[in-house]
Amino acid sequence: MSRIAVINPNLSAGFTKKVGDQAQRIVAAQTGIIALNPQFGPDSIEGYYDEAFASVGLLSVIRDLEAAPEQLTDPVGGYVVACFDDTGVDAARCLTTAPVMGLCEAALRMAAAVASRFAIVTPMPVSVRPLEHLVSKYGAASQCVVRAAGVRTLDFEGANAAVAYDALKKQAELCLRNDYAEAIVLGCAGMTDIADRLHAELGVPVIDGVSAAVKMIEAMAMLGLRTSKAGAYAKPPGKSYHGIFADFAPQP
Amino acid sequence: MSRIAVINPNLSAGFTKKVGDQAQRIVAAQTGIIALNPQFGPDSIEGYYDEAFASVGLLSVIRDLEAAPEQLTDPVGGYVVACFDDTGVDAARCLTTAPVMGLCEAALRMAAAVASRFAIVTPMPVSVRPLEHLVSKYGAASQCVVRAAGVRTLDFEGANAAVAYDALKKQAELCLRNDYAEAIVLGCAGMTDIADRLHAELGVPVIDGVSAAVKMIEAMAMLGLRTSKAGAYAKPPGKSYHGIFADFAPQP
Amino acid sequence: MSRIAVINPNLSAGFTKKVGDQAQRIVAAQTGIIALNPQFGPDSIEGYYDEAFASVGLLSVIRDLEAAPEQLTDPVGGYVVACFDDTGVDAARCLTTAPVMGLCEAALRMAAAVASRFAIVTPMPVSVRPLEHLVSKYGAASQCVVRAAGVRTLDFEGANAAVAYDALKKQAELCLRNDYAEAIVLGCAGMTDIADRLHAELGVPVIDGVSAAVKMIEAMAMLGLRTSKAGAYAKPPGKSYHGIFADFAPQP
Amino acid sequence: MSRIAVINPNLSAGFTKKVGDQAQRIVAAQTGIIALNPQFGPDSIEGYYDEAFASVGLLSVIRDLEAAPEQLTDPVGGYVVACFDDTGVDAARCLTTAPVMGLCEAALRMAAAVASRFAIVTPMPVSVRPLEHLVSKYGAASQCVVRAAGVRTLDFEGANAAVAYDALKKQAELCLRNDYAEAIVLGCAGMTDIADRLHAELGVPVIDGVSAAVKMIEAMAMLGLRTSKAGAYAKPPGKSYHGIFADFAPQP
Amino acid sequence: MSRIAVINPNLSAGFTKKVGDQAQRIVAAQTGIIALNPQFGPDSIEGYYDEAFASVGLLSVIRDLEAAPEQLTDPVGGYVVACFDDTGVDAARCLTTAPVMGLCEAALRMAAAVASRFAIVTPMPVSVRPLEHLVSKYGAASQCVVRAAGVRTLDFEGANAAVAYDALKKQAELCLRNDYAEAIVLGCAGMTDIADRLHAELGVPVIDGVSAAVKMIEAMAMLGLRTSKAGAYAKPPGKSYHGIFADFAPQP
Amino acid sequence: MSRIAVINPNLSAGFTKKVGDQAQRIVAAQTGIIALNPQFGPDSIEGYYDEAFASVGLLSVIRDLEAAPEQLTDPVGGYVVACFDDTGVDAARCLTTAPVMGLCEAALRMAAAVASRFAIVTPMPVSVRPLEHLVSKYGAASQCVVRAAGVRTLDFEGANAAVAYDALKKQAELCLRNDYAEAIVLGCAGMTDIADRLHAELGVPVIDGVSAAVKMIEAMAMLGLRTSKAGAYAKPPGKSYHGIFADFAPQP
Repeated sequence: MSRIAVINPNLSAGFTKKVGDQAQRIVAAQTGIIALNPQFGPDSIEGYYDEAFASVGLLSVIRDLEAAPEQLTDPVGGYVVACFDDTGVDAARCLTTAPVMGLCEAALRMAAAVASRFAIVTPMPVSVRPLEHLVSKYGAASQCVVRAAGVRTLDFEGANAAVAYDALKKQAELCLRNDYAEAIVLGCAGMTDIADRLHAELGVPVIDGVSAAVKMIEAMAMLGLRTSKAGAYAKPPGKSYHGIFADFAPQP
Repeated sequence: MSRIAVINPNLSAGFTKKVGDQAQRIVAAQTGIIALNPQFGPDSIEGYYDEAFASVGLLSVIRDLEAAPEQLTDPVGGYVVACFDDTGVDAARCLTTAPVMGLCEAALRMAAAVASRFAIVTPMPVSVRPLEHLVSKYGAASQCVVRAAGVRTLDFEGANAAVAYDALKKQAELCLRNDYAEAIVLGCAGMTDIADRLHAELGVPVIDGVSAAVKMIEAMAMLGLRTSKAGAYAKPPGKSYHGIFADFAPQP
Repeated sequence: MSRIAVINPNLSAGFTKKVGDQAQRIVAAQTGIIALNPQFGPDSIEGYYDEAFASVGLLSVIRDLEAAPEQLTDPVGGYVVACFDDTGVDAARCLTTAPVMGLCEAALRMAAAVASRFAIVTPMPVSVRPLEHLVSKYGAASQCVVRAAGVRTLDFEGANAAVAYDALKKQAELCLRNDYAEAIVLGCAGMTDIADRLHAELGVPVIDGVSAAVKMIEAMAMLGLRTSKAGAYAKPPGKSYHGIFADFAPQP
Repeated sequence: MSRIAVINPNLSAGFTKKVGDQAQRIVAAQTGIIALNPQFGPDSIEGYYDEAFASVGLLSVIRDLEAAPEQLTDPVGGYVVACFDDTGVDAARCLTTAPVMGLCEAALRMAAAVASRFAIVTPMPVSVRPLEHLVSKYGAASQCVVRAAGVRTLDFEGANAAVAYDALKKQAELCLRNDYAEAIVLGCAGMTDIADRLHAELGVPVIDGVSAAVKMIEAMAMLGLRTSKAGAYAKPPGKSYHGIFADFAPQP
Repeated sequence: MSRIAVINPNLSAGFTKKVGDQAQRIVAAQTGIIALNPQFGPDSIEGYYDEAFASVGLLSVIRDLEAAPEQLTDPVGGYVVACFDDTGVDAARCLTTAPVMGLCEAALRMAAAVASRFAIVTPMPVSVRPLEHLVSKYGAASQCVVRAAGVRTLDFEGANAAVAYDALKKQAELCLRNDYAEAIVLGCAGMTDIADRLHAELGVPVIDGVSAAVKMIEAMAMLGLRTSKAGAYAKPPGKSYHGIFADFAPQP
Repeated sequence: MSRIAVINPNLSAGFTKKVGDQAQRIVAAQTGIIALNPQFGPDSIEGYYDEAFASVGLLSVIRDLEAAPEQLTDPVGGYVVACFDDTGVDAARCLTTAPVMGLCEAALRMAAAVASRFAIVTPMPVSVRPLEHLVSKYGAASQCVVRAAGVRTLDFEGANAAVAYDALKKQAELCLRNDYAEAIVLGCAGMTDIADRLHAELGVPVIDGVSAAVKMIEAMAMLGLRTSKAGAYAKPPGKSYHGIFADFAPQP
């Protein structure tokens, strides 16, 4: 009945499959899941630099979906930006009238409903400050801290997965003890498959951004909510784009 | 498969039916809706005084549902407090492990995802300051204003409904023009049936808290999220309660 | 000449006597003290759940005092809500034109006048987050931390009083050392009788909320200050209340 | 029994007498009032420049009182800085162990207890921003606006008093209507004698800083509260002072 | 002696020349100015969508400058991102150890030093909310408002320049009157040549971001300040980039 | 071509020479440096009490410079208040139309441009809270902590300089490790000559307020920026001053 597009802005096919599978597992029977990643950009997103490139990749996928023939018969009802840095979410909201949700925003909303204080645990220290900016932008600064486990993002996918898990769990335990966190938010899309195990082992809610965002956007799509075009998310004013970005030019 | 309880904390049967109907309309086929209100308390909730009594009524309904025999076979998966003042939500989160959501919290979350700035329009001036406290508590103070339409809450149900609608719409238009709001949040559960009309007439997203909260709690219930018992929402410490409240005493 | 009502919202007669005695000790000769507690509700107030019930009990006492014959000849000049959670203070301000003050609000005001940074030490961890919300509401978040001593509220009254005192003092010392607190605020009405000893042993100001609130409300009463009825604390709009709350209905 | 010193930091003898008279009128019978102003400095305090000089004058008065022979038998129990800019209050708190209170701080505390939103009306536009800094420092920024009546401070004392009053009242009415203020705070010590009239004419609480500060400091003095010497208000470290300030040098 | 690179992230050659000329006019004799724009991207930057593409263009210019042979003999001492949206500044700080400054950040710093309250006037309404996020990020939310003149960014360069100027001036006058602004900040790089005229006509400081950023970065370069590599601005972790972005991959 | 006045508000000639030398070292060839201190006041500035006196001394130097004959031919283009407490900066901005900058303000601006999080290390604990107020006033509270090294300010000048340096460095290292600071801000004018050494030993940016303020004010002076006289920094209204301050009276 409705299609939800889950876009991994990096080029790790493993990530894309993992988040797509998780999305499929949790949506209603009649909701279709499209899991995609861009054709260009970085293999993972760790900090401000990677974000700049991943944002453009994200926009390319949305642009192509909006122009695809299926839009006429079964338009995409909502987009999930499957990256915890919420890379390019604001720009994406300008490009489509369908609602757009990042993992961090959705995860913070659900965390705030089940805990009065919580912690984001993210892989790399370089992401701490960007995530703190998101926490502040989403109004959760007085109840959420951001900590790094000290492992690489892609380590959650391969041979180092066990080591990565242990580092994550150890940091989460410190948050419960020292930061008085009452719940843990997983600060990376690639952790979506370890939420259940961590929840079982810690005994507190563990919020996975992929699940949170997919269900929130599914809910918003079913309610028929669309992005407002009356202000900051208005259709971009028409103008020329040049070079490798020429075909991204907004029409007047 | 799962039951969602939508509790109207005031005693207006009209409100209870209206929010129950709206909830039923928007949930998935397998989700059951229980729409209830307490047996004691005020007919409507307008300001701090009414809230104090409605909170206890709300807790009485949750207590009874948690103790009912159906809990053993088909436990309530989540509670919606169907009042825009989020009356008693924090206390309710102590009383059950199922997730609990108020209308204001859910509506602000969805509004923030489709608009960078928005306005709550509520019936009575006496509710403005309590709602501003909620907006601040939920971290939306930099993007959300609260305005009153100057009508009574119950006017949205009876002979004055047309006048109430006009006052609401006029105030919403002022918010779009003067406050640069990009979306309107309906600041009362009793407005749930006019969201579509207002959206059509204003051309911007109109967020109804009943719909927002029911879908968010349904999403959280399907994800298996439970309220953290590690901090502020822990099970209340055992102690004696007396007089008319004797049977609300938390067990040790 | 003027009567100050000190209302303990819980049902511990020991607490009520203790706060009443302390109030009597510090007011001017011509100020009369009425120390009361409700006839229904919890034995102590620890967290959001207890607060919901204690608020109604508080309102019942105020309602009865306002309706008593003495009001005609010697009206109550101010109310102290003798609970550090400031339970029901906003609702109480709607119910009477006399000024109403909670312990937390008054204690923070005096603490801020004698110290640039201070700490609230409260008995139970479950109260930390509710108190942090109060600290934020009263605008003191940048200068006040909240810590728990890890003892039950009622322990300050009975056989465990010595153990409770030691736990409190130990936590206060940690606040001086680690949080750079320059003064200690006692986070529970039941600690009113240990302020002097703790002050003597720590060498920094120790602010007792009972004393602070009684003196502030006495000062406001003598100045003739009344609660504004122009906004959030307006007289509740008239409506029907039902069941066990029927006789709390505001008159039109 | 106890002496309260009310220090007008400017050199207007009319102001000093006015605030002293008001203080005497409202304190308990056994409280003595000393009303003083410095021997040097400006005739009125309007903005940052005047404040710098008035602060030193204020400190000179406190220093002399602390060194006076009466201190041995009947020490000053508290100081009121009778200027709405709270000029020199922080420095004064370093100079004495008695509590020190400015008009703005005390008035905001009482205003917040009787109104959820309020406005300061001050004489000159040049004071608006300094007062906004105080409002922010005292944590009231979300509930208090500052407006100027557009008259000179000294106009409240002489032939222009009627014109000044009318300008003040007009501005206060605008605050009630446009800023949703529920109470008015008088933003100048020189307005202390018009609070009752304005209250009668506006029908909302009018808070006079002189009265608020005198009663708060009297309350704190009676409770035996002293300024903490553990941090920012510690006794100044000993060092040499030179020139006209030589005799202000703190002793080691 | 030192080279400052002023990078216009859009492709308007007129803008690039204008900001380069202004930069040359105000730097010290021994400071060299390199004014460049990317080879791909939008003609102007108005809102979140344009920003996403302009960020990548900006990074391409910095990458090329850092890899150029002149770096060995005369390294770039600092970068100015000549766009008022501070597009890509955080990512740029990861890419180089030279200091990087956006127009908005620099302009707010100088405005705060000459005025206690000020206003940004930007061309298009779509930029208001992104700029408000910057104002908040830079900590100026309590003293700075953002307003739109309602003209297109490129109108400041061509036949419509007079109309654009008038709209800007009219909006600036409203800010002085209604928002109590004491200075005006020009919210677009393309306005750099009208600062003097506007200052002369308004009689208050007018801060041009190009001038502010060039002088601040020149000052920082002369002091030898470099971007910290200890946290959020660390060198990006090595990884693969693909497709059109392949040659942006950070080396391990 | 232009003269910059660097005013040390305390009476330590060693400090004055040190900051003057540093200023001379970093300005452009055509910029003249005047390094002065007042004829009266404290030997160093540690906390609120010293600040009150140093502010007046500062104003005396500015007044004399503005009245000097050189003003007619070569007016002072900007003032640096060479104290990290930014003593008297707001009052000074009222006294002159030339821009005025304190060390703390300038250092925070440059620190925020090279690090996302940083720490001020100041000599004495008594300065921590006043500096925290400045950090908050300048909008950097979410990214800057203040710590004390536990040494006297004047120790950086004499026989104890090595001990003072070691204490400073040790505290800075704690900030890097425990507070995640990415850069260190030197919290005292007297540390200006150790910035290079500390930077070399710590490997992160070390910001010296003297250098930052001198270069910022030089930049602002070259751009012709003047303090706005439209609001809080307007010329003080004319009035009488008396006693030792008689010759500071603002003219009507």
